[in-house]
Amino acid sequence: MSKEMILEKIDQAVKILNEKNIDMWMTYVRETGNIKDPMMDMIVGTNATWQSAFIITKSGDTHAIVGSLELENMKTVGTYKSIHSYLKSVKEPLLEVLNQYKPSKIAVNYSLNSTLADGLTHGLFLELQDHLKDTKYANALISSEEIVAALRGRKSQAELDIMKEAIKETLKIFDEVTKFLKPGLTEKQVAAFVHDLTEKRGFGLAWDKEYCPSVFSGPDTAGAHSGPTDRVIEAGHVINMDFGIKYKDYCSDLQRTWYVLNPHEEKAPFEVQKGFDVIVESITRSANELKPGKKGFEIDEIARNYIQVHGYSEYPHGLGHQVGKLCHDGGCLLGPKWERYGNVPFLEVEEGNVFTIEPRLTIPNYGIATIEEEVLVTKTGCEFLSDRQKEIYLVK
Amino acid sequence: MSKEMILEKIDQAVKILNEKNIDMWMTYVRETGNIKDPMMDMIVGTNATWQSAFIITKSGDTHAIVGSLELENMKTVGTYKSIHSYLKSVKEPLLEVLNQYKPSKIAVNYSLNSTLADGLTHGLFLELQDHLKDTKYANALISSEEIVAALRGRKSQAELDIMKEAIKETLKIFDEVTKFLKPGLTEKQVAAFVHDLTEKRGFGLAWDKEYCPSVFSGPDTAGAHSGPTDRVIEAGHVINMDFGIKYKDYCSDLQRTWYVLNPHEEKAPFEVQKGFDVIVESITRSANELKPGKKGFEIDEIARNYIQVHGYSEYPHGLGHQVGKLCHDGGCLLGPKWERYGNVPFLEVEEGNVFTIEPRLTIPNYGIATIEEEVLVTKTGCEFLSDRQKEIYLVK
Repeated sequence: MSKEMILEKIDQAVKILNEKNIDMWMTYVRETGNIKDPMMDMIVGTNATWQSAFIITKSGDTHAIVGSLELENMKTVGTYKSIHSYLKSVKEPLLEVLNQYKPSKIAVNYSLNSTLADGLTHGLFLELQDHLKDTKYANALISSEEIVAALRGRKSQAELDIMKEAIKETLKIFDEVTKFLKPGLTEKQVAAFVHDLTEKRGFGLAWDKEYCPSVFSGPDTAGAHSGPTDRVIEAGHVINMDFGIKYKDYCSDLQRTWYVLNPHEEKAPFEVQKGFDVIVESITRSANELKPGKKGFEIDEIARNYIQVHGYSEYPHGLGHQVGKLCHDGGCLLGPKWERYGNVPFLEVEEGNVFTIEPRLTIPNYGIATIEEEVLVTKTGCEFLSDRQKEIYLVK
Repeated sequence: MSKEMILEKIDQAVKILNEKNIDMWMTYVRETGNIKDPMMDMIVGTNATWQSAFIITKSGDTHAIVGSLELENMKTVGTYKSIHSYLKSVKEPLLEVLNQYKPSKIAVNYSLNSTLADGLTHGLFLELQDHLKDTKYANALISSEEIVAALRGRKSQAELDIMKEAIKETLKIFDEVTKFLKPGLTEKQVAAFVHDLTEKRGFGLAWDKEYCPSVFSGPDTAGAHSGPTDRVIEAGHVINMDFGIKYKDYCSDLQRTWYVLNPHEEKAPFEVQKGFDVIVESITRSANELKPGKKGFEIDEIARNYIQVHGYSEYPHGLGHQVGKLCHDGGCLLGPKWERYGNVPFLEVEEGNVFTIEPRLTIPNYGIATIEEEVLVTKTGCEFLSDRQKEIYLVK
């Protein structure tokens, strides 16, 4: 991420602190080469070895407090206006900065609901509490989840431009897969083809190589989040692929569905076409209702109900997640009210959010039908960032 | 890391649980694609999206509890004997497994002292506490730092074999740099040469590309942990380079020092030679005392005092850290008793630990002299894994 984009996100964070009336936001870290707070890339732009605090205030100031050996590096990176360094303990410079602002609310990165706002480890949290225990800030720590959800969710124009490119490039790779697919190939061979193409074009992968892409062929396919197998593609299979690239540090995440024709067939059988059409229509219906102010679970319910009404089991995951620097990004999730999702399905959709919409259903004896599109929430609704798949792709 | 190596580390963890008398060790995570507990690579070998628990018991059992969509993946990965999955909440299967063992001590990954044992985020810790609050395990959670320090610190033969190779390959790259160096090159050009060579040979970098390698030339160089600059190498400069590779998932970390001769010189000036020799001797003296049972700070003091006695300022960091899958690995640190290091300088050196020894001093008007070697702690002392630098390299 360029310095300019980081400074743009820091400016946006200041606006959000004012909107939410929070005095300051502190990202407190150490040894980020070993475990890295997910916010570091977006609002700092380098690693930190010793205990370090990156502070953004409501008044628009920014302070970085780092170990003395990282002072020069922090100056070179240039994303923070005031840089403080220490040799033996972070406590003194930290309290000095706090005393300058006397914050009554300090947001730090812990959250029950969002991993992206939960980068502060428990040991570091205890240490921070200890630094503050005899000060007036002892009870000032609050969760940054609202800030993080807004900051990551509301995409800037620069972010959107990159994400649109990423989607375009990903769909080109899907087109190559359509030409490549044929009976006799294994799922692993399809994945190898995609890896090769992605590498040649200079892109990264949006998630773990072991299941990016996931390729599922036929009725006995494993669930999502498992890697491609030696299963052989055969006539009569429905094939699904889930794939995304990392492009200029931003992810895409899309799925497409194919049907492998039998020698005598010219189109997909009725059951396959029906399952596919239910998916397409469930996407249309949920997108029609997606707009600022809606809650995540309300959108999920539309597709979930539509699929169940047509006689299929509900999908065992959320309808869609936000996408950004990370494949699962932002706050609000278009998901059901299941405990494993915490409060994020209850959050509101905001303008500038980019969501996937990815319902899925099983077509008995054929395979899994899913389509995943990406949409941008506008002032009054949403627009598709991906060219929609509305017809099932046929493989001969 | 291969499945075999993971299973070997899990076996080692069982032994450590018995040695420390801890009933079970639970690595509790979610969305490890966004923020990853540093133990995942060593004892699990895949990512997890939904709340997941990876449990190793004193009796030698292993249980993975994962979201339903990751059941198949976990079976494929094959590192855990019992695999449980859930659709809506992790709580029930988690309590079922706990009830099977009724542990009075459950080690989880939080630590004030070690980032490697501090992979549990504060939000997840709160969630876990909530799952356990009405059970007999409410007060069973303890820090896993002792387990993690022992497990990461005591290298297996398979780990050592890889690490020795990594060191050999790294020193070959240093040799190429010795041939390449000449006045007129910038620090950045040297780094680019090293990046190119590393990539051609198929290795990764041991830490962030921005400062791996770090290259410091001359008297006005930035401190450690900052990247190479456009500063030009000139006659009369002392040059230092800090560099390591990632080889089969293990890191090396080494430093070497050069002197750039003036046209009329055939050897380094007295002050440069003296500074260099003090570094060499401080390494010898601290290595002579390094053995199981010593505390980290005792070894640091030897080099630190020796350098100060010879009229130089003390180095602003520890004498040496452990190396492994991560560049800064293991528990015990050969470091001073400074608050920023927590308790790790007070821990004991153990057989099988691999440490760097990297004292440093500034030679006024010339630059920074540092050498970094890697040593393996044996039953009675230590042995150098790297061919030591005992003469300053001269650049014409």
